[in-house]
Amino acid sequence: MTSEIYRNRVNNLLNTLLTRQNALNESMRYSVLAGGKRFRPILTYTTASLFDVEPSQVDACAVAVELIHIYSLIHDDLPAMDDDDMRHNQPTSHKIFGEAQAILVGDGLQALAFEVLASAENIIPSTRIKLLNLLARSAFDMADGQSIDLSVVSKNADLELLNRLHLKKTGALLGCAVKFGALLKSQINKKDIEILSSFSEKIGLAYQIQDDVLDILGSDECLGKRQNSDLKKGKPTYPSVIGIEESIKAYKGLYEEGIEGLGELSKSAKALIDLTNKIMHRDY
Amino acid sequence: MTSEIYRNRVNNLLNTLLTRQNALNESMRYSVLAGGKRFRPILTYTTASLFDVEPSQVDACAVAVELIHIYSLIHDDLPAMDDDDMRHNQPTSHKIFGEAQAILVGDGLQALAFEVLASAENIIPSTRIKLLNLLARSAFDMADGQSIDLSVVSKNADLELLNRLHLKKTGALLGCAVKFGALLKSQINKKDIEILSSFSEKIGLAYQIQDDVLDILGSDECLGKRQNSDLKKGKPTYPSVIGIEESIKAYKGLYEEGIEGLGELSKSAKALIDLTNKIMHRDY
Repeated sequence: MTSEIYRNRVNNLLNTLLTRQNALNESMRYSVLAGGKRFRPILTYTTASLFDVEPSQVDACAVAVELIHIYSLIHDDLPAMDDDDMRHNQPTSHKIFGEAQAILVGDGLQALAFEVLASAENIIPSTRIKLLNLLARSAFDMADGQSIDLSVVSKNADLELLNRLHLKKTGALLGCAVKFGALLKSQINKKDIEILSSFSEKIGLAYQIQDDVLDILGSDECLGKRQNSDLKKGKPTYPSVIGIEESIKAYKGLYEEGIEGLGELSKSAKALIDLTNKIMHRDY
Repeated sequence: MTSEIYRNRVNNLLNTLLTRQNALNESMRYSVLAGGKRFRPILTYTTASLFDVEPSQVDACAVAVELIHIYSLIHDDLPAMDDDDMRHNQPTSHKIFGEAQAILVGDGLQALAFEVLASAENIIPSTRIKLLNLLARSAFDMADGQSIDLSVVSKNADLELLNRLHLKKTGALLGCAVKFGALLKSQINKKDIEILSSFSEKIGLAYQIQDDVLDILGSDECLGKRQNSDLKKGKPTYPSVIGIEESIKAYKGLYEEGIEGLGELSKSAKALIDLTNKIMHRDY
């Protein structure tokens, strides 16, 4: 229920943001407003709620992290990258606007993410700087993780390499989403940050393994993209290395470890635990 | 002489920055350290010097603006965009590392630019926020300008459209480079900012027209890329619309107007005027 409220909230913010007149507007709206789970913004609002941070204080972070996520999907889908033609049940950006515009819309969205956060007047400058720094490092690590991913040609990569690349490719931005929620509380203690970092690493990895499992078990319609799209490309995934059953065990174990660690937080983590349980049982 | 000192300074900073171990390191170094005029960082150092800002205070801005410029060149050179195979007298990024890595190295460099500036501890947070905001808006406008550029198919675009796209595509980041130098001075007066904005618009447009002229008149070696590369693609340029002679008159006139306007600054603009004169007489 709360996730639904946060999802609507970020959808409205994104819709309002993308009304400026510019050449990229139509192509930005096409990808940004196509739906999507809005998992990262929901994580940020939920984490912030543990520390009694008002949603209005969280908005810029929620929007920024989602814009970075969407730019990464547009670039990942390009023919030179993963070459996907469907995303969120609609043709991918380059299928509609061409490759050049899809590259530019991704570039523009990355810049816009930083602009939204840099101009969030309701966050004090010293906190905003911390948030911007984290967003920049996470966006870099995400690109770096994708670079590692593309360079792994063998389906039989070992788990250590898979973990390392997932932690960057998926984990960096998920970690950013979680830590955003905590850093917005200016008086946050160091131990809470460490607990949330560890939590976000675990669920970041779990989320990616679960994605790989759903890529095999889910339907095209639910996934919003072609089923088995990763497997068909011969990319190494958890299921290709240790099998489906073990992969399911692995991601459930990681989610549970993540939840367990939250017990040490100085605040009640109930809302975040409920959200994690919900994600663990998602089917898309 | 001073330009040379600033160029060496930013080259050293970039070289030091790119020593972190990550998957994108080699491809980032390849493009970032390939040379280039470092015109934008030199503009920032020079403008800052008018307001007695120490070079050490300027470093992060100089590096950030150059990283954004280089990412834009890597993406502009892609086959889906301008499809150029030479840049700074060496094969373009995608020729060496492939298209996917070239997209990612551009993405990573954009993130890195924001990280460098966000983590510049020697700039007070409230100023850093202003600089980050300007960098983000300029990077967005640059991508937006490139998007307009790609959508202009006719060689016979009118000057009004050409001006509008050049102001975004080239002017936005040049303007950012100049205004960085002024915003670093926390007590800068509003009129000086306006004068420098107007100056940077004029030289941003002049620089692009001059580029188009040099693209026809210059040698491959001097340019570091193929001569006539824009004209061959049937892109509209000042020379294709009003001819070479009129284009030369136009850019010289704009540089001179820019220089004239600097006379109204509250500080002596000699260093910036000298730099502008030098640029006006460049042959590459």
